[in-house]
Amino acid sequence: MRASSKPPPGVTVIEGGSATSPQGFVAGAVYAGIKAPGPGKLDVGILASDRPAAVAAMFTRSTVKGAAVIVSQRNARNGRAHGVIVNSGISNVATGARGITNAEAMCDLLAAKLDTSADDVLVGSTGVIGRPLPMDKIRAAAGRIKLGPGGGHDFARAIITTDTHPKTMAVRFRAGGRAYTIGAVAKGSGMIHPDMATMFCFITTDAPIGPRFLRASLRAAVDDSLNMISVDGDTSTSDTTAIFANGAAGGTTIDASHPAAAAFHRALRYVCIAMAKILARDGEGAEKLIEVGIEGAATDREARAAARTVSASPLVKTAVHGNDPNWGRLLMAVGRSYARIDLERARAWLGEIAVYNRGIVPFDETAASKYLRSEEVLLRVDLGAGKHAATAWGCDMTPEYVHINSDYTT
Amino acid sequence: MRASSKPPPGVTVIEGGSATSPQGFVAGAVYAGIKAPGPGKLDVGILASDRPAAVAAMFTRSTVKGAAVIVSQRNARNGRAHGVIVNSGISNVATGARGITNAEAMCDLLAAKLDTSADDVLVGSTGVIGRPLPMDKIRAAAGRIKLGPGGGHDFARAIITTDTHPKTMAVRFRAGGRAYTIGAVAKGSGMIHPDMATMFCFITTDAPIGPRFLRASLRAAVDDSLNMISVDGDTSTSDTTAIFANGAAGGTTIDASHPAAAAFHRALRYVCIAMAKILARDGEGAEKLIEVGIEGAATDREARAAARTVSASPLVKTAVHGNDPNWGRLLMAVGRSYARIDLERARAWLGEIAVYNRGIVPFDETAASKYLRSEEVLLRVDLGAGKHAATAWGCDMTPEYVHINSDYTT
Repeated sequence: MRASSKPPPGVTVIEGGSATSPQGFVAGAVYAGIKAPGPGKLDVGILASDRPAAVAAMFTRSTVKGAAVIVSQRNARNGRAHGVIVNSGISNVATGARGITNAEAMCDLLAAKLDTSADDVLVGSTGVIGRPLPMDKIRAAAGRIKLGPGGGHDFARAIITTDTHPKTMAVRFRAGGRAYTIGAVAKGSGMIHPDMATMFCFITTDAPIGPRFLRASLRAAVDDSLNMISVDGDTSTSDTTAIFANGAAGGTTIDASHPAAAAFHRALRYVCIAMAKILARDGEGAEKLIEVGIEGAATDREARAAARTVSASPLVKTAVHGNDPNWGRLLMAVGRSYARIDLERARAWLGEIAVYNRGIVPFDETAASKYLRSEEVLLRVDLGAGKHAATAWGCDMTPEYVHINSDYTT
Repeated sequence: MRASSKPPPGVTVIEGGSATSPQGFVAGAVYAGIKAPGPGKLDVGILASDRPAAVAAMFTRSTVKGAAVIVSQRNARNGRAHGVIVNSGISNVATGARGITNAEAMCDLLAAKLDTSADDVLVGSTGVIGRPLPMDKIRAAAGRIKLGPGGGHDFARAIITTDTHPKTMAVRFRAGGRAYTIGAVAKGSGMIHPDMATMFCFITTDAPIGPRFLRASLRAAVDDSLNMISVDGDTSTSDTTAIFANGAAGGTTIDASHPAAAAFHRALRYVCIAMAKILARDGEGAEKLIEVGIEGAATDREARAAARTVSASPLVKTAVHGNDPNWGRLLMAVGRSYARIDLERARAWLGEIAVYNRGIVPFDETAASKYLRSEEVLLRVDLGAGKHAATAWGCDMTPEYVHINSDYTT
């Protein structure tokens, strides 16, 4: 009924894990002075493998792409990457030829540090659009960064902007008698309505994954997770998800026909869903995580559209914020997704409370309002039109969302 | 540069005009007790022609349609209608077979009152979704309503919900040596992102318009006006726009080849744009009208998509609310509309202030912030990708929007 928060069989969450939990990954970060200063602030970070790694990456489909997206997209094409350098504070978007030059210069800095080729590294920039990067500061920062296996948490702090906390985790799974680890780090709090990838989510694994299977597995996992979250319906210009697989834990290369393929994909999917929920819950100003479960859709596409539309609807989000069991807004949002719904067969629930059952039904409004006070709210609609299902995540909309975004650059 | 607020040549605005300004139209309204009581509140209204009239109507494309939409859609099909009966407070949506029966019963009440056939009247219901209509109250109310040529303003009050003021107007235009009048009345403040029609907008004219030309002219005018506004991106289940043309001012029937066709369409388009702007400005919690002008788009469709996406973007709306000249969000929103944009040729303006000119340009941020304090804010982007243009309207997003919608039914 609910996309489980429990790891699937064979997958364990590593307490205090990060993107450097998998073997052979290092990271580090410093404060370069791009973000406004503050205690413990970091704004330039590097996450890298100590050996060559296979890479698969997905980027925003916005027609306004950041310079870092354009350069990373090019560099990821050969299926190899050594690591990624990221700054927060300025997104290097709409900065023209100079923006591209600066993104390439960041790749050069990282390539020199890792002693690799500049087209075997990725770059990410996040923050205000339309300002040039302070390259002197970034150059000095890159020199100062010390890379180590304990650097995953610093890296997580270096890439955040309006996030209220760093977002990182790791899991272990067993396959073919070996233990493998997957680590992940993400950022994103506003301008979140990813299309093909989220803001930033970098994933590492010491499993030896073939590039083609890595790509297919990432795409499938992201479609069910990071592509199903929305904070405000605004797709970013910088959305980037990349997974690095360096094989440091040994074993034969895992491709789609390998016996360990399913175990890897299950673990990766779990990590992607967990990160998606962490991102949605930390939406700008949000107080609650909203999970939207759609069942009974005529097609998979309609199930996904309905789930995303409900999770992104301002009227649903404000009703949840106000603990208002105004279930009509659920149906309204389904309707505007253009997913087919048969109102004579449809049903809707707030948590376990049925609020619509093939027609209007009486329900305990006080209990429903109380349920909506939960930190995690489940909204379910059975469209009564078929057999397809999808889950999406979002957050409530609060006056704080407006406050945060009414005063960002100035 | 800006969709003019001035009427086109030959069109004059009638001071204090309403939907009953055209000859042969009457209206009236009473308080039935559907909405919460309050001084001067009205919640059931009738707008009618004293003789048969041609009708053209457009309805929401949501897959969750209100019962009134379903019944009105059927009744409008023959191109004739005598009038419309509307209640506010309850929308009669998701109410099953009983909802249809109730919508038909409202038509019966109006048909009896006008001494016409029940399939020659329209019905509208707006308000909370998923509650049955109190038919006893509506029946009693319909009996009490007194129809008269001065009733347009009462009707305007009877159809509003969270609107802060009634919305009605009238214009006069001359064609073929005759003076004709067009009146209009609308409601809508939240759940506004119309698709093929807006919440409610009823238009009347005493010009003799042929049904086919009436339909074509309405569609074209609505596509450039009511279909280009957004308050919150949420498309309503009840959106209805209808125009009644009773020919009471005389003359030969105006069809597409009639010499007066252009004059009529110009006047109708002006009325639709004026009503669209009035609706957008009165968006829930809004303090400002935002007009988005897109130029240089590769196709008409992309121009419209870009304009609507910018006008509906929460990050643009909050930036305007905060007087924050964060123009990067304009480009972000264009990007996520998937309209093509050439950043090497693109330009953007806040009012007259160029904030992007084929690349980053310095601009006076204080002056730009001061400009954004205006009650009417113009955001313009030239995509540098072609020759197509479009205009859309929206409003700023305020903490008040969240307050209004966090506590609506409870």
